[in-house]
Amino acid sequence: MKTSALFTDLYELTMAQAYVAEHMDQLAVFELTFRKMPANRNYIVAAGISDVLDFLATFRFSGEELDYLRKRGVFLETFLRRLQDLRFAGDVYAVPEGTLVFPNEPLVQVIAPILEAQLMETLVLNQIHFQSLAAAKAARVVEAAKGRSVLDFGARRAHGTDAALKVARATYLAGGAGTSNVLAGMKYGIPVFGTMAHSYVQAHDSEAESFEAFAALYPETTLLVDTYDTLKGVRKVVDLSRKLGNRFRVRAVRLDSGDLGSLALETRKILDEAGLEHVRIFASSSLDEYQIRDLVKAGAPIDAFGVGTKLAVMEDASHLDIAYKLVEYAGKGRLKLSTKKVLYPGRKQVFRQIEAGHMVHDVIGRFDEELPGERLLQPMMRHGRAIRDIDLEESRRRFQSELTRLPPPLRDLGPSSVPYPVSFSERLQDDLDKIRKEIAGGT
Amino acid sequence: MKTSALFTDLYELTMAQAYVAEHMDQLAVFELTFRKMPANRNYIVAAGISDVLDFLATFRFSGEELDYLRKRGVFLETFLRRLQDLRFAGDVYAVPEGTLVFPNEPLVQVIAPILEAQLMETLVLNQIHFQSLAAAKAARVVEAAKGRSVLDFGARRAHGTDAALKVARATYLAGGAGTSNVLAGMKYGIPVFGTMAHSYVQAHDSEAESFEAFAALYPETTLLVDTYDTLKGVRKVVDLSRKLGNRFRVRAVRLDSGDLGSLALETRKILDEAGLEHVRIFASSSLDEYQIRDLVKAGAPIDAFGVGTKLAVMEDASHLDIAYKLVEYAGKGRLKLSTKKVLYPGRKQVFRQIEAGHMVHDVIGRFDEELPGERLLQPMMRHGRAIRDIDLEESRRRFQSELTRLPPPLRDLGPSSVPYPVSFSERLQDDLDKIRKEIAGGT
Repeated sequence: MKTSALFTDLYELTMAQAYVAEHMDQLAVFELTFRKMPANRNYIVAAGISDVLDFLATFRFSGEELDYLRKRGVFLETFLRRLQDLRFAGDVYAVPEGTLVFPNEPLVQVIAPILEAQLMETLVLNQIHFQSLAAAKAARVVEAAKGRSVLDFGARRAHGTDAALKVARATYLAGGAGTSNVLAGMKYGIPVFGTMAHSYVQAHDSEAESFEAFAALYPETTLLVDTYDTLKGVRKVVDLSRKLGNRFRVRAVRLDSGDLGSLALETRKILDEAGLEHVRIFASSSLDEYQIRDLVKAGAPIDAFGVGTKLAVMEDASHLDIAYKLVEYAGKGRLKLSTKKVLYPGRKQVFRQIEAGHMVHDVIGRFDEELPGERLLQPMMRHGRAIRDIDLEESRRRFQSELTRLPPPLRDLGPSSVPYPVSFSERLQDDLDKIRKEIAGGT
Repeated sequence: MKTSALFTDLYELTMAQAYVAEHMDQLAVFELTFRKMPANRNYIVAAGISDVLDFLATFRFSGEELDYLRKRGVFLETFLRRLQDLRFAGDVYAVPEGTLVFPNEPLVQVIAPILEAQLMETLVLNQIHFQSLAAAKAARVVEAAKGRSVLDFGARRAHGTDAALKVARATYLAGGAGTSNVLAGMKYGIPVFGTMAHSYVQAHDSEAESFEAFAALYPETTLLVDTYDTLKGVRKVVDLSRKLGNRFRVRAVRLDSGDLGSLALETRKILDEAGLEHVRIFASSSLDEYQIRDLVKAGAPIDAFGVGTKLAVMEDASHLDIAYKLVEYAGKGRLKLSTKKVLYPGRKQVFRQIEAGHMVHDVIGRFDEELPGERLLQPMMRHGRAIRDIDLEESRRRFQSELTRLPPPLRDLGPSSVPYPVSFSERLQDDLDKIRKEIAGGT
């Protein structure tokens, strides 16, 4: 679904008109960075660049959109004509999707005449921000599950349809097994799963009848056992297995309320005693990484988790202090000095240093510096054309390989006492000092 | 933008196929309710029904979508043909948009053959849930501002494009003055505002030069003064006023970092001493209702607030325990008894009792009961056709009038010691007891 070019803050357009009026048409470099790690995160997972590239590649104003702008009374005809013909023809660099990222590291770099680069701000922020947060949250949930499957069940509680789709994608990117969201399955080619809802059980005259009917149509299904009384529900599954004999192929029962840990233990016991050791236990109900960790630690015999709300809204870290900042214009480094928000000037590169298979230190340097380490920012778009396909499976593999390189304490759910080390290069520090002095003198 | 019929959890479709296989085609009543008020809320504001009605009115599966389902291998051709012809032809009742709502009250009621009603679950939940939460959050921000303008600046931090648009709409619904989001302005006909960004200032060789250029093009603009040093920035606005004399028509300065309270005081002083009493002060930077309340209480001379992230992600109450539950099928009340989640059976109505201009008590009764009070659930769609236009201006007026009827302690930002009283009618309680007994005996 194409996103409208009007998905932008009004000031991007008024500034754009001012750039035109002032004949400011030089190259600008904007960088997307976040300033601080949320309290409950040790890393963020870069995600969402494919939506940015799609937006840039198809960016144009429709007649209806231009008419709407015309009626605002602040835009000149000459500017509206300029917008009518405007396409994004710049370059984009980004950290590849699935890469672990840390504060102050540019995630995306947009290099284009300032008019074009400025107009993209709102959408670039909107997409990278929440998708990267969602992937980071999902990564923790998957980590907590210690190899058990994690499914995204959050479509109903995510903030809107766009969020629901992309949380499903981000969960898969971060190692989840799939989603319940059918549209996400179609759009992103990810596995889709489903069980049954309470309404199905309720619509039947008895729970036993609903189980039998569903298993007749879907022999290898998962049966939801907590509509009336969880353990009685489990016993009805046992009854069904006796009734069906060899034809009983139900794969799992699902617990969706109550104390999941003790219910899982009792459920396992009932199933095992009935010779149903192969029937798995699936759990859902307000789960997040903390509860899953506790369940796993307590040895709850749960085989897979459906995770909804708290992942879908990224409950404990729902936003980053992220910004899309001008760092260079007309070949000159630009900065910003407002309280606590110092911005280093100039186009940057991130050099990730690897030792013995682990990432040990990132240095943010000038783009043209020669420093040791892997360069994180890679070309994604040249002259407005994508030069790299974003493949979700590749992003997913990259994330897995990134995890194995992360210092183990940073994989923990608790905040690490020592954050991952990121520093600025000497040359970047020199550039900051120099421009700071110029501004102190000049403005 | 039409939402795909595949925006649904997979189990809705597998259950739907089971209903068809079992010839279960009787009328179902589903109700959307939330079970608990979030800790930081005294009320929720019903919102989002227009998106639900649009979805239902245009619901259909495309050939591509049916092909995708066909390839899952779990759907029979007969069922897929049934989906191909499927339209939503049911009835919908809902609490009108802008109405204040409380736990256990049905916000939406869908009455249709169970197949049709079941398939709508995911989208109904997705839209009503987050839009109602956004309106409730925005209402608090507007309340805290005590008559000062509140603008939505959250497009970049909302979770996706759908969230951004609808948070803008919800903010206006709840008394906000407008949004920075141009697409929301076009789509919903709400006022659009904008100032300037740091990048504009940075792109110029000096801050003074940027102010002069912007004011030349937009004489009545707002100038952003904190790119380098806030108070020096304010003095440059004063310099510009001297330079331009009568031609100086700048309306406001914007503070976007630092201690907004003390900076606003000092800014006001500098402006007043320069004879610029008419230049207003606009503030933004991580604001929410709590910070705005404190600024207003401290007498900070701020005239308007731009509110972004914390409103856009509904930081302190980002989800409700909301569900779309089957309460009646084939004329018979249905319930659910799983731990802590008891559901009252049968189709309901909410009776709101008003005394001396204030709402004093809501009673949730059977739909066909005759109880005193206003009936909150009103018909929105009949046989699949909307019978009521949802007009945002009307919703906005309704919300204002609702606020004046709310008991004053519940308007406070702090949680009220006494929540708004909501009870179930005797007849509904009888119905629950009766069906509970049947199930205890029968299943």
